[in-house]
Amino acid sequence: MSDLAIVAEKLDAVDELAGRRAEFVLDTASDRAADAAGVYLDGNSLGALPAVVPGRVEDVVRRQWGELRIRSWEESGWWTAPERIGDRIAPLVGAAPGQVVVGDSTSVNVFKALVGAVRMAGEGRDEILVDATTFPTDGYIAESAARMTGRTLRPVAPADVPGALGERTAAVLLNHVDYRTGRLHDLPGLTAAVHEAGAVAVWDLCHSAGALPVGLDEHGVDLAVGCTYKYLNGGPGSPAYLYVRRELQDRFDSPLPGWNSHAEPFGMRTGYEPAPGALRGRVGTPDILSMLALEAALEVWDGVSVEAVRAKSLALTDFFLECVAAYVPAGRVECVTPVAHEERGSQIALRCDDAGDVMKRLIERGVVGDFRAPDVLRFGFTPLYVGFADVERAARVLARTLG
Amino acid sequence: MSDLAIVAEKLDAVDELAGRRAEFVLDTASDRAADAAGVYLDGNSLGALPAVVPGRVEDVVRRQWGELRIRSWEESGWWTAPERIGDRIAPLVGAAPGQVVVGDSTSVNVFKALVGAVRMAGEGRDEILVDATTFPTDGYIAESAARMTGRTLRPVAPADVPGALGERTAAVLLNHVDYRTGRLHDLPGLTAAVHEAGAVAVWDLCHSAGALPVGLDEHGVDLAVGCTYKYLNGGPGSPAYLYVRRELQDRFDSPLPGWNSHAEPFGMRTGYEPAPGALRGRVGTPDILSMLALEAALEVWDGVSVEAVRAKSLALTDFFLECVAAYVPAGRVECVTPVAHEERGSQIALRCDDAGDVMKRLIERGVVGDFRAPDVLRFGFTPLYVGFADVERAARVLARTLG
Repeated sequence: MSDLAIVAEKLDAVDELAGRRAEFVLDTASDRAADAAGVYLDGNSLGALPAVVPGRVEDVVRRQWGELRIRSWEESGWWTAPERIGDRIAPLVGAAPGQVVVGDSTSVNVFKALVGAVRMAGEGRDEILVDATTFPTDGYIAESAARMTGRTLRPVAPADVPGALGERTAAVLLNHVDYRTGRLHDLPGLTAAVHEAGAVAVWDLCHSAGALPVGLDEHGVDLAVGCTYKYLNGGPGSPAYLYVRRELQDRFDSPLPGWNSHAEPFGMRTGYEPAPGALRGRVGTPDILSMLALEAALEVWDGVSVEAVRAKSLALTDFFLECVAAYVPAGRVECVTPVAHEERGSQIALRCDDAGDVMKRLIERGVVGDFRAPDVLRFGFTPLYVGFADVERAARVLARTLG
Repeated sequence: MSDLAIVAEKLDAVDELAGRRAEFVLDTASDRAADAAGVYLDGNSLGALPAVVPGRVEDVVRRQWGELRIRSWEESGWWTAPERIGDRIAPLVGAAPGQVVVGDSTSVNVFKALVGAVRMAGEGRDEILVDATTFPTDGYIAESAARMTGRTLRPVAPADVPGALGERTAAVLLNHVDYRTGRLHDLPGLTAAVHEAGAVAVWDLCHSAGALPVGLDEHGVDLAVGCTYKYLNGGPGSPAYLYVRRELQDRFDSPLPGWNSHAEPFGMRTGYEPAPGALRGRVGTPDILSMLALEAALEVWDGVSVEAVRAKSLALTDFFLECVAAYVPAGRVECVTPVAHEERGSQIALRCDDAGDVMKRLIERGVVGDFRAPDVLRFGFTPLYVGFADVERAARVLARTLG
């Protein structure tokens, strides 16, 4: 056994989150078939299946839908699921209850949040700033939000945002963690700068929620969105969420005022009157199967502190970098994720010329990360189910694949 | 046995769709517990569970998500599900392949369709017409679409649409079947009138698709949306669909240009370039659990002709009216659904003063319809699983409840 394998064993032995791994479906026949490596480092794209989910989904399908049918909208709590599940996510992103609602895709929620933000900012401000390095959908949707509200969209690197802010700025859309590099941006500092300029701050939490503390309330974030299928393990394409800070909810003027956001949805009234609170972020009928699978998946967070998750996440990524440095020939890969803890999310991105091919071979050997164009190997570390031995094994297989 | 019960028995015996009932989960313990009536006439709100669905969902959760994980986006066909399932719905609404895409809620699709329609109509046309009797969400969303495109929204009763059309009309949003009264509107005639005025026709098929022929291609409809949880039995809140006529697809300029509608989604490019075809109607990551449950549910349509469904639907609603006339004391209820076949969808709406209370008692007695404010008892007839004996029993229980 190598020195680092021994270190890994010791780290796993004292890992207070190690027991959580048993709450997930891992080490399946498919994993073992793949060269026995069986290391899943793609939870930042699709979280593993929590063991509680299949039984819950079966109950939703067979009993709630199959037997109770329409009665389940009340009796099985379907109707209130978007707010209820929002409140379950709230503590994970540092939000008090009543500010998060679940439903629709991240893209649709970016549209709601950004148009809502621009409308809060008022007529005089005609520019939207967007993270120039953003996951593309935020940029595309921001372009549409700008076009439809008569504003100008200006892409700016997050570090340049403070200098770009001004009296023209209506809203700023930023990513908490960069999807490609894994860089963690300064949410408290940037939010404060946005506020100082009198603008509205919108954060995309897709790559941070469930991996590190977000502190939405604490840092005075105005609006935020995030997906639930990465570190929250909600399942493929599970519904996203929208946060609107309590003080702003009455001024949240949604561009998608569907009947589910009406003050009295079953009044079937011709005139629209928005519901108070988080409810106002709803649109149409919620997709119950995906939503209740997510609700079950969130149970793995019971008794887990986000601080403990963050501590383990940093330990995992530190250890991965250590193993890569020890095993991989110098110069073969370049780490594009910041080394400083305060600038690192829960992934490591390695630049390498033939990244697409390398990732293919890695996956064949049972180490599942992903490739992001043009040249990035991306490895996500989900503290609830990734251990230090996994990390050491992954680095070893990577070295063999690159060698 | 009453005369009408004998008639029902004979009608069931010659019903060519009678065998389809076995493909649904019905007559469960919950149904029998409810006074043994067990008649589900609310498939126009939430379709019953197709028996094939639970096993399929279990496979999606346990194997596709739990074992294959991220690989399923390719290997299990997750990525292409929106178009593939759209093509499965297409023949049910009279559309050739490549024009229907599944995803998002009906409300979100109304927004896409209506903004897209207004943009097709061009700058010179500044008015949107909307069905004044519409299900509310279409009206709310149309108001937002009008506001965000700088147009004026004008509610008009469907019958008055031809007279309201003119050079100012950009787009018209209509319901194929009225959600409250069950009135079937003249889709071919109204579409032709809209086109004659040079405007764009958008139809909401929520209450018609799966119950009667729609003929989107045949009648030259421009854009259409519909839900899948009513007559298509996709499950609670299952994703909706968007139809864009092939000739218009290149001009469809979506207000929600998420990364899933990009020509090269994994190119991760900063600039948006829309995909060709139906794909352009996609937005964000599709909710796979709900979507693949819907795909399984659509298998009950294999070998079913929509014409046969329509014939049975009319026979069921005719027979219900006959039974109500025979059993219910005169003057106690008033039918607000048109008697003429060409004006009737697949539901019967009865106005009655204490409709809310009556429906509550009906449900206690095992006849499940629903109440729509202010005074309507709504009964939906799903030809794939409702039989004539059900209809006679429902009318009998209704008479007893009203008596």
